Amino acid sequence: MGLKTKAEYIESLKKQKPVIYMYGEKIEDRVNHPLIKPEVEVGGLTYEIAHNPKYQDLATAKSHLTGEVINRFNHIHQNTDDLMKKVRLTRLLARYCICLQRCMGWDALNTLSIITYEIDRKYKTDYYERFVNYLKYVQKEDLFLTCAMTDVKGDRSLRPADQPDKDMYVRIVEKREDGIVVRGAKAHTTAALISHEIIVMPTRAMREKDKDYAVAFAIPVDTPGLKFIARSTVPREMRELDAPFRTKWGVTETLTIFDDVFVPWDRVFMCGEWEFAGLAAELFASYHRFSYCGCKAGAGDALMGTAALLAEYNGVEHADHIQSKLTDMACTAEIIYACGLAAAVRGRPMGPGTYVPDVTYSNIGKYVSGTHIYEEFLRIHDIGGGIICTCPSERDYLNPETKPYIEKYLKGKVGVPTEHRIRAIKLAEDLTVHGFAGWIMVASCHGGGSPEAQKLTIYRTYDWQRRKQIAKVLARIEPWERFPEFEL
Amino acid sequence: MGLKTKAEYIESLKKQKPVIYMYGEKIEDRVNHPLIKPEVEVGGLTYEIAHNPKYQDLATAKSHLTGEVINRFNHIHQNTDDLMKKVRLTRLLARYCICLQRCMGWDALNTLSIITYEIDRKYKTDYYERFVNYLKYVQKEDLFLTCAMTDVKGDRSLRPADQPDKDMYVRIVEKREDGIVVRGAKAHTTAALISHEIIVMPTRAMREKDKDYAVAFAIPVDTPGLKFIARSTVPREMRELDAPFRTKWGVTETLTIFDDVFVPWDRVFMCGEWEFAGLAAELFASYHRFSYCGCKAGAGDALMGTAALLAEYNGVEHADHIQSKLTDMACTAEIIYACGLAAAVRGRPMGPGTYVPDVTYSNIGKYVSGTHIYEEFLRIHDIGGGIICTCPSERDYLNPETKPYIEKYLKGKVGVPTEHRIRAIKLAEDLTVHGFAGWIMVASCHGGGSPEAQKLTIYRTYDWQRRKQIAKVLARIEPWERFPEFEL
Amino acid sequence: MGLKTKAEYIESLKKQKPVIYMYGEKIEDRVNHPLIKPEVEVGGLTYEIAHNPKYQDLATAKSHLTGEVINRFNHIHQNTDDLMKKVRLTRLLARYCICLQRCMGWDALNTLSIITYEIDRKYKTDYYERFVNYLKYVQKEDLFLTCAMTDVKGDRSLRPADQPDKDMYVRIVEKREDGIVVRGAKAHTTAALISHEIIVMPTRAMREKDKDYAVAFAIPVDTPGLKFIARSTVPREMRELDAPFRTKWGVTETLTIFDDVFVPWDRVFMCGEWEFAGLAAELFASYHRFSYCGCKAGAGDALMGTAALLAEYNGVEHADHIQSKLTDMACTAEIIYACGLAAAVRGRPMGPGTYVPDVTYSNIGKYVSGTHIYEEFLRIHDIGGGIICTCPSERDYLNPETKPYIEKYLKGKVGVPTEHRIRAIKLAEDLTVHGFAGWIMVASCHGGGSPEAQKLTIYRTYDWQRRKQIAKVLARIEPWERFPEFEL
Amino acid sequence: MGLKTKAEYIESLKKQKPVIYMYGEKIEDRVNHPLIKPEVEVGGLTYEIAHNPKYQDLATAKSHLTGEVINRFNHIHQNTDDLMKKVRLTRLLARYCICLQRCMGWDALNTLSIITYEIDRKYKTDYYERFVNYLKYVQKEDLFLTCAMTDVKGDRSLRPADQPDKDMYVRIVEKREDGIVVRGAKAHTTAALISHEIIVMPTRAMREKDKDYAVAFAIPVDTPGLKFIARSTVPREMRELDAPFRTKWGVTETLTIFDDVFVPWDRVFMCGEWEFAGLAAELFASYHRFSYCGCKAGAGDALMGTAALLAEYNGVEHADHIQSKLTDMACTAEIIYACGLAAAVRGRPMGPGTYVPDVTYSNIGKYVSGTHIYEEFLRIHDIGGGIICTCPSERDYLNPETKPYIEKYLKGKVGVPTEHRIRAIKLAEDLTVHGFAGWIMVASCHGGGSPEAQKLTIYRTYDWQRRKQIAKVLARIEPWERFPEFEL
Repeated sequence: MGLKTKAEYIESLKKQKPVIYMYGEKIEDRVNHPLIKPEVEVGGLTYEIAHNPKYQDLATAKSHLTGEVINRFNHIHQNTDDLMKKVRLTRLLARYCICLQRCMGWDALNTLSIITYEIDRKYKTDYYERFVNYLKYVQKEDLFLTCAMTDVKGDRSLRPADQPDKDMYVRIVEKREDGIVVRGAKAHTTAALISHEIIVMPTRAMREKDKDYAVAFAIPVDTPGLKFIARSTVPREMRELDAPFRTKWGVTETLTIFDDVFVPWDRVFMCGEWEFAGLAAELFASYHRFSYCGCKAGAGDALMGTAALLAEYNGVEHADHIQSKLTDMACTAEIIYACGLAAAVRGRPMGPGTYVPDVTYSNIGKYVSGTHIYEEFLRIHDIGGGIICTCPSERDYLNPETKPYIEKYLKGKVGVPTEHRIRAIKLAEDLTVHGFAGWIMVASCHGGGSPEAQKLTIYRTYDWQRRKQIAKVLARIEPWERFPEFEL
Repeated sequence: MGLKTKAEYIESLKKQKPVIYMYGEKIEDRVNHPLIKPEVEVGGLTYEIAHNPKYQDLATAKSHLTGEVINRFNHIHQNTDDLMKKVRLTRLLARYCICLQRCMGWDALNTLSIITYEIDRKYKTDYYERFVNYLKYVQKEDLFLTCAMTDVKGDRSLRPADQPDKDMYVRIVEKREDGIVVRGAKAHTTAALISHEIIVMPTRAMREKDKDYAVAFAIPVDTPGLKFIARSTVPREMRELDAPFRTKWGVTETLTIFDDVFVPWDRVFMCGEWEFAGLAAELFASYHRFSYCGCKAGAGDALMGTAALLAEYNGVEHADHIQSKLTDMACTAEIIYACGLAAAVRGRPMGPGTYVPDVTYSNIGKYVSGTHIYEEFLRIHDIGGGIICTCPSERDYLNPETKPYIEKYLKGKVGVPTEHRIRAIKLAEDLTVHGFAGWIMVASCHGGGSPEAQKLTIYRTYDWQRRKQIAKVLARIEPWERFPEFEL
Repeated sequence: MGLKTKAEYIESLKKQKPVIYMYGEKIEDRVNHPLIKPEVEVGGLTYEIAHNPKYQDLATAKSHLTGEVINRFNHIHQNTDDLMKKVRLTRLLARYCICLQRCMGWDALNTLSIITYEIDRKYKTDYYERFVNYLKYVQKEDLFLTCAMTDVKGDRSLRPADQPDKDMYVRIVEKREDGIVVRGAKAHTTAALISHEIIVMPTRAMREKDKDYAVAFAIPVDTPGLKFIARSTVPREMRELDAPFRTKWGVTETLTIFDDVFVPWDRVFMCGEWEFAGLAAELFASYHRFSYCGCKAGAGDALMGTAALLAEYNGVEHADHIQSKLTDMACTAEIIYACGLAAAVRGRPMGPGTYVPDVTYSNIGKYVSGTHIYEEFLRIHDIGGGIICTCPSERDYLNPETKPYIEKYLKGKVGVPTEHRIRAIKLAEDLTVHGFAGWIMVASCHGGGSPEAQKLTIYRTYDWQRRKQIAKVLARIEPWERFPEFEL
Repeated sequence: MGLKTKAEYIESLKKQKPVIYMYGEKIEDRVNHPLIKPEVEVGGLTYEIAHNPKYQDLATAKSHLTGEVINRFNHIHQNTDDLMKKVRLTRLLARYCICLQRCMGWDALNTLSIITYEIDRKYKTDYYERFVNYLKYVQKEDLFLTCAMTDVKGDRSLRPADQPDKDMYVRIVEKREDGIVVRGAKAHTTAALISHEIIVMPTRAMREKDKDYAVAFAIPVDTPGLKFIARSTVPREMRELDAPFRTKWGVTETLTIFDDVFVPWDRVFMCGEWEFAGLAAELFASYHRFSYCGCKAGAGDALMGTAALLAEYNGVEHADHIQSKLTDMACTAEIIYACGLAAAVRGRPMGPGTYVPDVTYSNIGKYVSGTHIYEEFLRIHDIGGGIICTCPSERDYLNPETKPYIEKYLKGKVGVPTEHRIRAIKLAEDLTVHGFAGWIMVASCHGGGSPEAQKLTIYRTYDWQRRKQIAKVLARIEPWERFPEFEL
């Protein structure tokens, strides 16, 4: 109760029957499908670690509602220490699976705790109570949640209500006594296939005329009318040596269709309160960008470890320029993580006391991760060599006609087994050459919003007035006495 | 005679039976194999264009040996205009196939024209005559050549003769009356599968004790003992919409095995003259880095065109930051090309009058292309959006159950058919997400040598003395009269 | 006649009596004033080199009007070879004086040759004839010209005719029978103090209502009503060791006031033809940005020479990271120059046959120079060490009480006299620490327009349609047959 | 007692008579000398703020030795909160004076607290007791200390004992009963002229044969034999408008000569214990690089405030590219500060319980600050315009002949007084164009060691083994069970 095992998690997934299409087929068994299984493994890791005695403090928490021990991924941040543990936990896990996927549900829960509270404050509604009841259920059942955020948007120069097709953003098409009916689609929803439930939130600020689009709710993945058109980063026929990473870990993304889906009132957390749509979007963005400060540092550990291992196996680890490039990789990962630590230390409570990480540092950390992953790829390729892309496949390594040649000619530093070198090369290939590589780049760039979105947020929330005042004092436009104080 | 058609080229490939392994299988029909066919298309393009009236001046040349019209890819550069046409031709073709693959043979021929001439000058040998005879044959038969350059190298801290396994660099194991026998392996040979012959050259400078490794020659791809373990950038099951690029164009790389291969004397162009190995490596590098100044600018055209098209289809092409990022892409491509033009204008004759592009500009152009491709990927992803990686596959688009959803929800700017938008997205995916994306990155980085190799070449060949003298004059350490003149 | 000596140039400057204010004083003797003399030296260099037999081909030309030998700085570019010589000449001179200052007049003359021709074509006016007569005079007298371009602009969000103060752009306030009267001010005019005449041109595109601002003309610097408020990069009290560069070479900038200045008709080259103001501004920008492709490469030679000399004197020139950073400096200078060479090779005739460099490459070269000078400063400081900024002054070196300490403690590599090391340090200080350093940075950044102006020009003039068409062909949105051809 | 006022500080400086040379003269009155006075103001600020009620918690501390309230600049860090306050305090002060100068003494005291303790542990010496007594005196008298670290080094390829001139590193030339005699020189000592005492420490790791160079001590600035050859960033004749920054604040650097200086035993803190020289250098570096994480963020506030003010006054603050560039400036400052916060949070006790900031984050913060200041200059120049460098001087503004022209023509946005715009321009000029600009760049780059020194430290102290182990696990070279745990 409260802490499922990995096996229980997988078993519970089997009980739901979501509608999933992928590569032209309808998928019946999501748990054992070869393109989804590696992602189920990632989901499982978040359950497994909670039972690992070494990580109990990090991976579990005490529910502020019930006092029960729960999986930290369903916990509401109560203080800066909780924030600190979040970046630490995401970094730890991402070292192994690159993307841990359960952060989205976590970020959505924390956002909803504030939004529902604030709407109630203005409108005397009971959203917060609904949310608390839902949260207790989630914590007790130890559910895996994801969040569908980004609408498909149609013509990007038009806002929701102005689109020729009114369904370009998810909207309320009917309000009934027992709940609401919603229609629309969300793009690139990560981890829906391995989730129990999906939280839906508005993707942007709304105007009054957009109020049908100001809607937030949570539903099980097998709710009628909900359909997932999925794609995977896992190739069909890869074996272990060719894809040491992807044979174990994976990610899926879905186009999530809401084909007139009914949502009962106790699962509705915003319904027309358009003034709060922007805050919901911003808060989720802050939380999720903060998550990147941990996971992208962890992914950086894996990437630089791979580069360092290749340098060793190639016998070039003592070259100055190799060490300099490895250090560049370390700097990138640690700058991202430093932003995470800073965002945690400077976190502040909102709404019912939920802690929110500092918006500037969360955004900078995400911005650096999204724009520097490309440079990290450059470093790995530069350090590891062209063989990352030209090494023959496992099948040729196992083919007795060709194995002796590969064994002889692809050996590196004396004492390193050829197979080890090939495994390290294949890891680099797996992470930086194929479809998963593309996913790492694009997800780093656009996950949690585009780099431009982060720059805009930083600009808009930064205290320019005080900084201009410093300049005025220094230029003697204003007297010294007007020493502007502000947040350090 | 002298200008094969594409059909004749393909027909001629069929007559050879090289030993090819790929993904665990022995490949019998290289022309029609689904993983090689797209590369045959690229080879065919270099024949096709020579028959296109619009491009005759660019794609053909008059042989300086026979006066016959030949395919320019087998031409020895006679002046700076020939160099200029080389960068123009490579840019033109790379716009469509990204990597045109026939430049390696071209670069190797030009290198051999100088090296054989210079060895003869020192040793009164007859390599140049052999080379000229070979070249006439190549030009007359309009052969597609590639070049195998990079040895597998074993322990990179040891030079050829010092390796525990003596075969880590290709070497002469026997000299016979009728020729030589060679053993070893070359890594990442591009285009071997679609070539008629392969030119082999030393990959680095040698010492006297390495003289068995100072060897250059040319042999047909079906020479006994020659074996190719190949890999491809074309995935097995991609359909057209999912892979608009790769269903038409492709690249293969091979680990090329020389299993005691016999080479007759008239095909041997260096045999133990170790002092010339370094020059051969450097000249080939200069030529090949120069080729990158054209082809990577052409690849840049395709990449920025894709980004601009996505911006239009998404309806964001008028945003300032989009235009700024597109301009960054233009700058990168044009800096690379400007280095190509500068290298051509500053080209100089060597040996028998063969023109060599300027070493500084060739190296800078290649260096920029190899280190900036990653930034170009960032720009495409940033401009095009996360959908580049999360868009459902063609099979879902064609599945009547899911097509209506995709058609409805993935439309963009009013007036643009959803299919066009999806095609543009899939092109971006094809170029920047999957295996071909990895190949573009790694080949840009390491093709023609690593970025570090280019920096070293630039440093070593640059005139630092004269620049220090300028500083001495300005610092009054030396008098004004010692006005250092040098190459502008 | 046609080629003044340096002495004749200086003598001729004395004959004019322009109104100059600087640092609160009115300057009477511009030739011998300690803050202007170093700039006169720069002017003199452009005359001196024309008499140097080694550089006659580069520094002089044959007038296309008269066939006389003239200083190349007053020549109209007749072909791509003239363009090539321009980048070579500017690089050569800038190696010694950093900014050669005579390019502005040169660029303005070439611009006017086209603009006057084109206005005449439309309006049957006689501007071109006036211009040709003026040019003959300039060539015969070997005048030093500068160009005043940038208006003071007032509120930058308002266009000329919309400004509350109508004089924020230079304008025609009266048309008389014998000429026009102009009023306004131009900001940061370089080299006015050492010029014979000043050419004035519109700084931007105009609308019909701005037509009083569409004006171009040339006047002697001592024309009544013309006033210069100047500043200098030369400090007052620097001695030679402290300022090895600036004691010899310098630059001034002026705020140039047109206090109801009369211009006779034969010196008026545009007068209300507002449709041509934009073209004039763009052409001048292209020419001037092209000039930067030469001079900033030359400045780069001086900067990297200084860095290399310091590395030698400090005994660290063999460190890998030092060589790597020096190579970065070489790459920056050569990329700028490669853009210059490419712009020259791709130059095309306009108007009466005047050659214009390629707009894309001119702009990219300038853009790189303006944004990378800061990195060059980083490299020099990084390589040379903190002593560049903390070394005691010459006065302490000459003070017998302190000299022995400095002589003992500031020695570097064995065998290098302490004074040489100090001189090299002081050169670096002079170029990168004081006011001239600031000028180098700002002039690189904003000279010829801001980096943003260059990006806009590149974006607007680049052929995006053809590049999108490549993408359409690759994505199968358009058929292969529509093979878009375009300028290579 | 324990907290001097600014007036008392200045009074106390007058009582000492150090030997100072500057620009060829011997300086008698260091407090009122126009080139030193602005630096005295900076010193004064560190006393003034300790009496400001708003900042008592930040600017003062309770001595862990005596329990007395002391100036925080003489406090030994007792916990991570003390480290946090250090970055906050340095950022706050640097916003106004750019370089607060008192951090060096602070960093040296903290270093000595550990080093003396550790030497005692090994050798049963009594250095720590001496140090504690000295510290009590410093805290009680509220002394301003600086630290002389960098030796002049002579031939950089030779270590101390191998130099032809044995005095290239400060060394013990005699040990006497009452103390030691030292000889040598330290380069670029900041703030010596405004200090009461100077702490001397070894600049690098030593070998046994270098043991005479392993020496640390503290002496008053007027100790016999101690001589300062100084230079200043303050120009001689600047008035307020031309140099709004430097007329108030300034910095000096000295070549510090130890001409056989006697140091009594109670002021000697290391004397031949060569194994500890490296640790002393590394600890001081960590502390001082950590200080940069605060002060360079504060300098960044001033720089971006200046840029933002100019954007407002020029009327361009709403342009997208301006906001984007301002945001880049914010990102740089906040990345540096985030590294400071992270280094504080991850601080750990050493020796007697003195807290040391995390070495990785301290070094990355300093590295970013030293390599990105150049980009910050680019941003200011780009945003502010060429006028930053070409604006006429204050003297012309005050000259009645020229004032009306400047007043009229240099106005910007409607409603902003021309004088305000000129003041803001002059502030930008003062910070980024003249000698102080050079100092900011060089001090950012080399203060606390060169960027290369930071990269080396990061590489050497980073946990590469664990990261390679992650790669081995992912590549299946090692089994999953070997889940490497390490510091998050």
